[in-house]
Amino acid sequence: MRSALHFLVVARRCEIDELETLAHTCGLVGAIGRLVHGLQRERGLSNVLLASGGRRFAAQRQAQLGECLRLEQDVRDAFDELESQAHRGGSGTRLFSRIAAVVPGLDALPVLRQRVGALELDAAAATTAYGKLVAGLLAVVFEAADGATDPEISRLLAALFNFMQGKEFAGQERACGGAAFAAGGTDEARRQHWLKLIAAQDRCFRFFVDFAGPAAAERWQRSQPLAELAELERLRRIACTTAGTVLDADLATTWFDCCSLRIDAMKAFEESLTDTLQSCCVNKVAQARAEAVSHETLLARLPEAGQALANAYFEGLGEPDATALAAPGGPFGQRFERSVLDMLQEQSLRLQRISDELEAVRAALNERKLVERAKGLLMARRRIGEADAHRLLSQTAMNQGRRLVDVAESVLSVADYLADGA
Amino acid sequence: MRSALHFLVVARRCEIDELETLAHTCGLVGAIGRLVHGLQRERGLSNVLLASGGRRFAAQRQAQLGECLRLEQDVRDAFDELESQAHRGGSGTRLFSRIAAVVPGLDALPVLRQRVGALELDAAAATTAYGKLVAGLLAVVFEAADGATDPEISRLLAALFNFMQGKEFAGQERACGGAAFAAGGTDEARRQHWLKLIAAQDRCFRFFVDFAGPAAAERWQRSQPLAELAELERLRRIACTTAGTVLDADLATTWFDCCSLRIDAMKAFEESLTDTLQSCCVNKVAQARAEAVSHETLLARLPEAGQALANAYFEGLGEPDATALAAPGGPFGQRFERSVLDMLQEQSLRLQRISDELEAVRAALNERKLVERAKGLLMARRRIGEADAHRLLSQTAMNQGRRLVDVAESVLSVADYLADGA
Repeated sequence: MRSALHFLVVARRCEIDELETLAHTCGLVGAIGRLVHGLQRERGLSNVLLASGGRRFAAQRQAQLGECLRLEQDVRDAFDELESQAHRGGSGTRLFSRIAAVVPGLDALPVLRQRVGALELDAAAATTAYGKLVAGLLAVVFEAADGATDPEISRLLAALFNFMQGKEFAGQERACGGAAFAAGGTDEARRQHWLKLIAAQDRCFRFFVDFAGPAAAERWQRSQPLAELAELERLRRIACTTAGTVLDADLATTWFDCCSLRIDAMKAFEESLTDTLQSCCVNKVAQARAEAVSHETLLARLPEAGQALANAYFEGLGEPDATALAAPGGPFGQRFERSVLDMLQEQSLRLQRISDELEAVRAALNERKLVERAKGLLMARRRIGEADAHRLLSQTAMNQGRRLVDVAESVLSVADYLADGA
Repeated sequence: MRSALHFLVVARRCEIDELETLAHTCGLVGAIGRLVHGLQRERGLSNVLLASGGRRFAAQRQAQLGECLRLEQDVRDAFDELESQAHRGGSGTRLFSRIAAVVPGLDALPVLRQRVGALELDAAAATTAYGKLVAGLLAVVFEAADGATDPEISRLLAALFNFMQGKEFAGQERACGGAAFAAGGTDEARRQHWLKLIAAQDRCFRFFVDFAGPAAAERWQRSQPLAELAELERLRRIACTTAGTVLDADLATTWFDCCSLRIDAMKAFEESLTDTLQSCCVNKVAQARAEAVSHETLLARLPEAGQALANAYFEGLGEPDATALAAPGGPFGQRFERSVLDMLQEQSLRLQRISDELEAVRAALNERKLVERAKGLLMARRRIGEADAHRLLSQTAMNQGRRLVDVAESVLSVADYLADGA
C-alpha cells in the first residue's frame, strides 16, 4: 500500500521525464532555426542567381550549399535523437507526424538545387519551393510549442515560433526584393506581394512581443541594426511607392546585403532566445530533481508520514478542536502534520496555476491560428489584402462588442455561405 | 538518414503507447467509480445510523464496510498498476499529484469509521468527510479526462466525469434526506441545501448529455427506474415544499431504498459507460497497431519510398507538367507516389482534426469549470442560491450578447472588486 508521498515522487518523476524530453525538443528547435536561416540565405542567393540569368552570386551560392548540407545533417541528427528518447505519448504522435511530413522536402533538396543551378526554374518558383520547405520546418516548431506541458516553456516556444515566422517573412522579402532589383523593375502584383510581406513581419513580431513579454521585447528593439533598418526603408520606398518603377540593377547587392545584415541580427537574437529556452529547461529539470530528492528523503526518513497526512485529512471535522481526527499520542507533532499537508496543498495549487497558464498559452496560440485562417479566407473570397481583412475583422468585433477570435470563428463557421466578393 | 515513413511509424508507436496508457487510466476510472459507489452507500447508511442514534442500519453498514475495503484495495492496486506503466509525461504529473492528494483520505477512513461507529460525529460532519473523499477521487477522474490526448476518449471521460459527479450529488441527497427523515423533520437550511443538491444533479446530467451525445442520452433516459423516480419526487415534495415539516421517521427506510434503487440504476448505467470507454480504447489500440504494421510493411518492402515522396514534394513546381521534379525513369509510377503522398496528407489532416476536436473538448471542460467557479463566487458574495447565480450569469450574457463563459471570466477577473451583497 503506497503512500501519498510515494505518489508525489512518481508525479515529480513524470515531470522530470517530460522536462528532459522538452529539453531535447528545444535542442531540435534550435537546429531547425539554424537550418531555416541557412535555407533563407540559400533562397535569397538562388533568387538573385535566377533573376540575373546566372550572372550574380554563383560562387556565394555554392559556398552556402555546403553550409546548408551541414545544418541539414544537424536537424536530421536531432530528429533521430528525439526518437531515441523515451516514448512521448500524444504530443509525440503529432510531432513525429510533422517530422514525417517535412523529411521528403529535405530529401528533395538535391533535385531542387540542381534545377536552380541549371537555371531551369524562375525566381518565383524557387521561392515557392523553399517557402514550402521552411513552412514545413516551422510547423514542427509550432507542434513543439503546442505540445509542451510546461506553461513557461510553452510560452517561450510560442514566442520563438512567432519570431521565426517573422524572420521567414523577412527572408521572403529579401528574395522578393532581390529578384525585383536584379530584374531591374517590379510590377503591381509583386509590389502588392512585397507590401503583404512587410505587414506579415510586423504582425509576427507583435505576436512575439505578446508571448515573450516586455523584457525580451526591449532586448529585441535594442538588437536591431538601425543603419541597415534605415537603408532598408529607403530601398522599400524606392521600389514599393509606385508600380512599374525602373530599378537600378546594381542595387540588388545593396538590397541583399542590407536585408542579410538585418536578418543576421535577427538570427543572433533568435540564438539568444534559444539559449534562454535551453537554460530554462535545464533549470526546471534541476529544480524538479531537487524536489524529487527531498520528497524521497522525507519518504525514507519518515515511513509513517502517511499516517500524519491521514490524521490531517479530516482535520477539524465536526469539532472546534483542530486535531479532531488525529490519533492521540501519534508520533508527529501538529507542526509536522501541517508542513506535510502544506506541501500537498501547495502542489495542488501549483498544478491549478500551471493548468490555467497552459490553457491560456494554448488558447492564445490557437486563437491566433483561427484569426489567421479567417483572414486568409476573407482575403481569398473577397479578394482583399491582409490589412483590409484584418480591419474588417476588428471592425466587426468592435461593432458587435465581441472578441476578435469569436468573430474569426463565426467567419470560419459560415465560410461556405460567403459569396465571392468583387 | 531516416525516411518519412520511418517517422510515421514512430508517430504511430507514440500513439499506441499513449492509447495503452489511456486504457489503464480508464481501468482506474472504473475502479474509482465502483469505490465511490460503495462509499456513497456507506455514507448513506452511516447517516441514518447517526441520525437515528445508532438504532437503524447498524448491520447493513457493517456489511457495507467489508465491501468498501475490497473496492478500496482495487483502487490502490489500480494506482500501483498505473505507476508501473511507462512514463506519462506532463499529464502523469497532474494525475499522480491528484492521486497523492487523495491517498491520505483513504488512509484516514478507518479512524472516520471508528468515530461513526462510536456515534462521535453528527450526520452533517460524516457527510462532509465522505464528500471530501469522494470529491478527491472524482478529481482524479477529471484529471484523466483533461489529460487524455485522444478527443473521443477525452469526450467519453468528460461525459463519465459529469455523470459520476451527478451521481455523487444524488448520493448526497440520499444522505441529506435520510438524515432528515430519520430525525423526523427538517429545517430551512437543510431544505435549501436539499434543493441545491437537486439542481446540481440536473446540471451535471445536462453536461453529461452534452458530452456523451444523443444516443447515450437516450439510453440514459431509458435506464431510469420510473416507479422509484415517481416515489422519489413524492418524498421530495413532502419534505421540501415547506420548511419545518414534521416527517414520518419510518419513511427513512422508504426514502433510502428508493434513492438506492435509483442510484443503483445509475451505477449500472455508469458501468455501461465504463465498458464503452474500455472497448473504445481497445479498438483504437488495435487500429493504431494495424496501421503501424501496414506502415512498417511498406517501409520494409519499399526502401526507396522516401525518394518517391521526395519526388512528389515539389510536384508541379513552376511548370504545368505535374511530375516537374520527379527523377525521370525513377522506379515508381505516379500512382504510387500519389498514394504515399495521400497517406502523408491524410495523416496531416487527421492530426488537424484531432487537434481541433481535442481543443473543443478541453475548452468545454474548462469553460464549465469557469462557469461553476463564477457561480460559486456569486453565491458566496451575494448570498444567493445556485439557480439565481446561474440566472444572473445567463441574463448578463444575453443582455450583452456575450457567451456565458466570457461573462464568467469577467466575473472572476473582477472578483476582488465585487462588494458583499445583502
